[in-house]
Amino acid sequence: MAADALRRLWGEMRELGLGVSGDLHRHDSAPSPLQFLRDHVSPNMPCIISPSATAHWPAIARSLWIDDDYLCNTLRSQIVSLHQTPNGRADSLVPLPKSRSESDEDRLCFATPFVQQIPFPEALRMISSPTSSPTAPVAYAQQQNDCFRGEYSALAADVEPHIPWATEAFGCFPEAINLWIGNSLSQTSFHKDHYENLYVVITGEKHFLLLPPTDLHRLYIRSYPAARYIASPESGELILELECPERQVPWCSVDPFPSSREAMLRQMASFPLYFNGPKPLECTIKAGEILYLPSMWFHHVRQTPDCNGTTIAINYWYDMQFDIKYAYFNFLQSFKVVPHHFLCDMSEKQTQADEEANEQSER
Amino acid sequence: MAADALRRLWGEMRELGLGVSGDLHRHDSAPSPLQFLRDHVSPNMPCIISPSATAHWPAIARSLWIDDDYLCNTLRSQIVSLHQTPNGRADSLVPLPKSRSESDEDRLCFATPFVQQIPFPEALRMISSPTSSPTAPVAYAQQQNDCFRGEYSALAADVEPHIPWATEAFGCFPEAINLWIGNSLSQTSFHKDHYENLYVVITGEKHFLLLPPTDLHRLYIRSYPAARYIASPESGELILELECPERQVPWCSVDPFPSSREAMLRQMASFPLYFNGPKPLECTIKAGEILYLPSMWFHHVRQTPDCNGTTIAINYWYDMQFDIKYAYFNFLQSFKVVPHHFLCDMSEKQTQADEEANEQSER
Repeated sequence: MAADALRRLWGEMRELGLGVSGDLHRHDSAPSPLQFLRDHVSPNMPCIISPSATAHWPAIARSLWIDDDYLCNTLRSQIVSLHQTPNGRADSLVPLPKSRSESDEDRLCFATPFVQQIPFPEALRMISSPTSSPTAPVAYAQQQNDCFRGEYSALAADVEPHIPWATEAFGCFPEAINLWIGNSLSQTSFHKDHYENLYVVITGEKHFLLLPPTDLHRLYIRSYPAARYIASPESGELILELECPERQVPWCSVDPFPSSREAMLRQMASFPLYFNGPKPLECTIKAGEILYLPSMWFHHVRQTPDCNGTTIAINYWYDMQFDIKYAYFNFLQSFKVVPHHFLCDMSEKQTQADEEANEQSER
Repeated sequence: MAADALRRLWGEMRELGLGVSGDLHRHDSAPSPLQFLRDHVSPNMPCIISPSATAHWPAIARSLWIDDDYLCNTLRSQIVSLHQTPNGRADSLVPLPKSRSESDEDRLCFATPFVQQIPFPEALRMISSPTSSPTAPVAYAQQQNDCFRGEYSALAADVEPHIPWATEAFGCFPEAINLWIGNSLSQTSFHKDHYENLYVVITGEKHFLLLPPTDLHRLYIRSYPAARYIASPESGELILELECPERQVPWCSVDPFPSSREAMLRQMASFPLYFNGPKPLECTIKAGEILYLPSMWFHHVRQTPDCNGTTIAINYWYDMQFDIKYAYFNFLQSFKVVPHHFLCDMSEKQTQADEEANEQSER
């Protein structure tokens, strides 16, 4: 059975050094470019780099970004993109909009946030001091479009424009630098990026669950209709509407932290390969630490804010190499999993449709 | 069909930069360790390095190894391992020994050479000036057991003890250095090694066919009974005998250069995935050039001697990383190909038996 081959693959990745959570390699100082390339990029293996590598960044050394006044002053007239959802779950699976018929009750859609362009000081207030109203949106300042060098360029001098040892290893400068300012409610569902990622936490903590690309079937990637939150013109309340024309988005089905015991039982019954297989790597990245998140690794992210109520992180995306690892991943991906069975492959036609959907979602 | 997934994988490897033969990357001078690691080792991609990288080696700069007198004088009292076969094909598939019944006529075995320990001058004479007798053995001085630092240590000062930029890239010294002295008749059948390989031609030329690890099914790896050549006590002629007790060796079935048109037609009918799929990379490595042959790549080697009648090469084996690429390869290997069909996987039991056979053969 292909199922056995997949299980051996997952097991072998662990035996080959991925190990258990405690084993995630920690560097006491910045690695040399050669060491980083040889021990982490080439084998596609994550690691954590101690705060000593970022201790000289003004944002950290002078605690600039812990100071709301400093941030608001520096960005006082800057309009930023604020992502808003009712529950902190953007780019995530949620039940279909209520307007749909009862029979759809259990069906999910892929919900993208309501994105508002507002002055930074107002955005920061909404993130760090949300109103207690149950209908108040959860706000997350982020935009994965190189936003740090765009909306947040006034903060450029507070961090390094690139990670020198990584830039030397990759042989290029970052393709995008993104800033993330969130609170305890924001979380990011399991997904992968086609970039090499250096993720630096500046304030607060980020909690990652990591699964190697080899484990893709354990996340049950399925197609879901795309939906987006919009602000009701009357109440301002966020409401979800399906995109029209309908668009399908392939997304990881597994929610590792469902909100109730009942939901957890449903998850465990629906996604046994995730819940019964090897545990994901689990790590917490603290202020000043860097996570090297290799390309194509699946990651789920939650956060704990600092005393100011925010978690601020910046990540450097470097172009990945589309090499033999990528070719193998695509081969692996052509094997489909259906409940309690593995199929050897789909028909040519279905595979093509999936690939197109994948390509769309990656843009 | 899994066959479609495999074909896409082979095609994708070409699209991702493997390209066609002419595209094999050539470096005009020794690459930096970082460049070598980033552009070749990490993506598992071969390259050729121009003779300028070895121009300072005495063996090359002073043409020492073109001079038979120099070699014989330096190694005059040295006993070396001389591999002998009737046809230049050692570690290769040949028809079963004649003593077997007629019904076995088409069956093949895996033949290892007759290995004789003889003084180097005699060995060199047998290689470079074989007698014209049709029963005279084809001799090949080689032993893949770090022989250059053993039997041939008297030549140590003529080359570098390691390839500095490769050693820095891999973070370790070579695990083994092997010397190869052959003539136009010696060839090496398709196989792979679990090492990173830097292959330096000193005199003559080596002709390689290369296939990436992704293409393993195209070589029809099957189990063959092991046999060895022994010298007849009466005539001295080489005769083939099956190992007893019987031992099975998994080996590539494809012979890309069969000796007759008839044999070629048989090959093409038996191994369509090889002959109808993407062509292997083809390259000739000339004196002074280095081939970087990445770990797990299948390679077939022939040679053209210099005016002295020999081709001399030295190769540096560095330990490979058993990382995600290796895990993916093993996953790929668990899918079996049978004539005109692909099977999704074998039963657990058969796979295990195959793995054991593989492990044995790799020792």
